[in-house]
Amino acid sequence: MWEASLYTKIAVSFVLCLLCSLPGQAQGVLSDPGFKLAEDFVGKDHDRFIREIIQITETPAPPFKEEKRARLFADLLKQSGLSDVEIDAEGNVIGLRKGTRNGPMIAIAAHLDTVFPEGTNVKVRRQGTRLFAPGVGDDSRALAVLLEIVRAMDAAKIQTASDILFVGNVGEEGEGDLRGMKYLFQKGPYKDRIKMFISLDPFGWGNDVTVGGIGSKRFKVVFRGPGGHSFGNFGLVSPAYALGDAIQKLSRMQVPSRPKTTFNVGVIGGGTSVNSIPFEAWMDVDIRSEMKEDLDKSVDTFIRLMHEAADEENRVRTTSQGRIDVEVKLIGDRPFGQVAMNSPIVQTAGAVIQSFGLNPNYGMSSTDSNIPLSMGIPAITLESGGTGGRNHTLDEWIDVEKTPSVRGIEIAMGILMSLAGMN
Amino acid sequence: MWEASLYTKIAVSFVLCLLCSLPGQAQGVLSDPGFKLAEDFVGKDHDRFIREIIQITETPAPPFKEEKRARLFADLLKQSGLSDVEIDAEGNVIGLRKGTRNGPMIAIAAHLDTVFPEGTNVKVRRQGTRLFAPGVGDDSRALAVLLEIVRAMDAAKIQTASDILFVGNVGEEGEGDLRGMKYLFQKGPYKDRIKMFISLDPFGWGNDVTVGGIGSKRFKVVFRGPGGHSFGNFGLVSPAYALGDAIQKLSRMQVPSRPKTTFNVGVIGGGTSVNSIPFEAWMDVDIRSEMKEDLDKSVDTFIRLMHEAADEENRVRTTSQGRIDVEVKLIGDRPFGQVAMNSPIVQTAGAVIQSFGLNPNYGMSSTDSNIPLSMGIPAITLESGGTGGRNHTLDEWIDVEKTPSVRGIEIAMGILMSLAGMN
Repeated sequence: MWEASLYTKIAVSFVLCLLCSLPGQAQGVLSDPGFKLAEDFVGKDHDRFIREIIQITETPAPPFKEEKRARLFADLLKQSGLSDVEIDAEGNVIGLRKGTRNGPMIAIAAHLDTVFPEGTNVKVRRQGTRLFAPGVGDDSRALAVLLEIVRAMDAAKIQTASDILFVGNVGEEGEGDLRGMKYLFQKGPYKDRIKMFISLDPFGWGNDVTVGGIGSKRFKVVFRGPGGHSFGNFGLVSPAYALGDAIQKLSRMQVPSRPKTTFNVGVIGGGTSVNSIPFEAWMDVDIRSEMKEDLDKSVDTFIRLMHEAADEENRVRTTSQGRIDVEVKLIGDRPFGQVAMNSPIVQTAGAVIQSFGLNPNYGMSSTDSNIPLSMGIPAITLESGGTGGRNHTLDEWIDVEKTPSVRGIEIAMGILMSLAGMN
Repeated sequence: MWEASLYTKIAVSFVLCLLCSLPGQAQGVLSDPGFKLAEDFVGKDHDRFIREIIQITETPAPPFKEEKRARLFADLLKQSGLSDVEIDAEGNVIGLRKGTRNGPMIAIAAHLDTVFPEGTNVKVRRQGTRLFAPGVGDDSRALAVLLEIVRAMDAAKIQTASDILFVGNVGEEGEGDLRGMKYLFQKGPYKDRIKMFISLDPFGWGNDVTVGGIGSKRFKVVFRGPGGHSFGNFGLVSPAYALGDAIQKLSRMQVPSRPKTTFNVGVIGGGTSVNSIPFEAWMDVDIRSEMKEDLDKSVDTFIRLMHEAADEENRVRTTSQGRIDVEVKLIGDRPFGQVAMNSPIVQTAGAVIQSFGLNPNYGMSSTDSNIPLSMGIPAITLESGGTGGRNHTLDEWIDVEKTPSVRGIEIAMGILMSLAGMN
């Protein structure tokens, strides 16, 4: 769920990075013959990589229903060479690749879940180097990158100092509320052991580095009223009109463009039949900001608007059978967090990206990294390579043209190897 | 789906009826010893009648899913004494009680369907003489009245001149769009043979007589847009905001109170996840009027408002990824129709109601009778007796206190016998 073309640049970070030198470890890894072998393997294996993207994409993974894709991904991880693979109690696929020198454990993850409900047509349509399907880039491509990295490391017989935990996690999107990450870091078998974290999410050249977790709050707003007959009870207050008014008020809410602050009405529902005044109408709302203060301010305004909408409906129509009530329930809360720009994980990522001839672009977003970041664990979110667009829509697509596609995989692999320490 | 407490009185009709004398046939029937025997039976059988209301109510019958209740009702009709019972191709239960002298066939119907979706709790809660459950009055009570009339006629060995067709029909509510009636009168085995029609819908003392079918049009309004990511694509046009604006505009639409004209947003939906800008948001709208001219005028205004909402959303937010389109699709069209006040069916109904010491109250509504009325077949809609309230809501209730409950059954039976001609 990376933030596409409107990705927020942190100007100061870019300047910092122009000054930073390529850390020695990264330089060493990228020129290592073993790493070169792994890069060669990725290039030659690209057709299989594309087939796996398609296979993963065509295995549906709606929110809270990721099991089928989890089982597939666990099998593919094993086929790619990992022997120690399991599905944890929350539904995350976790596979350990042991290191040789007890370096700090690094986890690298891509998320299994999509935003699309059960029944969505997830058949991939291919047109030249373009693949079209809901979820193909967000985050199927990244899952396939994890498989590719495992195979390339094995093919090149790479051994690392650190243990690497490969993760296909649940609950990144929507109401999943980062449940996969919360379990991994707070309850799962590797909690307290993961010392660095990389999330791949989603497609993109590979030079965007998310170094901060944007805070978000999600709400379910439910308007309730007496309901009634469309003709016989015409004139009674209606939760549908309260909802309409609430949406309209929210759509006009003023938010700052810097720090970027946003709102969204994501899902709407209510009512039982065309000829009944509904007794309930509801919506799910997402509010985000780069700054806690602005998030809190927008949330306050939003809650006030919801109550105003209920009050107004009670004013303009009859309450003889009952009033409109509104409930604003918090259904998601993604914590803020930031990793220091001079930390090894950010410095290493920047150095590797530069060595591939690209300029690192640091920003903030709301991703799986929010959880480790909020716990003080160094974490970044990287792109998975290639190009694409329209994620979170039925028109989602990626381009798997070989050069930018392979380069993205190599960048992710280079950052991971540099952090894990090659023997 | 009778129009509850806001039932429209046609003042002139009431005056007309004060002047009308009790037609001879009705007088004869009501004083017939056979009819008295049938009345006695209804009084003694009232506990079984209540048990059947509960049994019917607790058998769910969501729109387009009336099969289970249909099978139950067919069985109960047979147990009540009708041998010739079938379920037609549309799902209506039809049971014929043959007459002896080839009088004009009369059909009397109650509808099987409720407005409540699958999964609604339909367990009946009893509190003294009150029964609480969705659908208990609309139209379960009326279905039980049909059973009671069949049994009472048999118990009193009543033979009629006319064939009587007892009907438990589908598709009265919501998007059912009167499909049960359309089939019965235009395609089914008794089409062209039914010469008079009585609909029982729903509870009420028994003195309301619907003599005209209110026209209604139902629409599905769908707003479509490009969709996108809630944060990354913030600022794009959203079908959710267009819908909110459309609902708000509609909620302020001016309609005349006389002829009574109404609108309703009945069902709302759209969106796939809280953190995605929806690509679709929709609502089902019901518009009705006692006069065709006012219905047409309101429909025109409504359609204009929908397009204005789409245009406005395209104006205030970014259309770089695509515009908001709106589709306004007609999903229901209930024809107007009226039976003459001096027709035998209306005169007889009025006379019987008066003979029970009540003042007939003539009005218009949108019921199953709309179909025969639109075809020129004399039809009325009657109440099924007792009292109640809150139909089309989860708080629906009826009171089965014996006196008004039994009287309602007797009124319906008296009108039916008077029209069918007792031997």
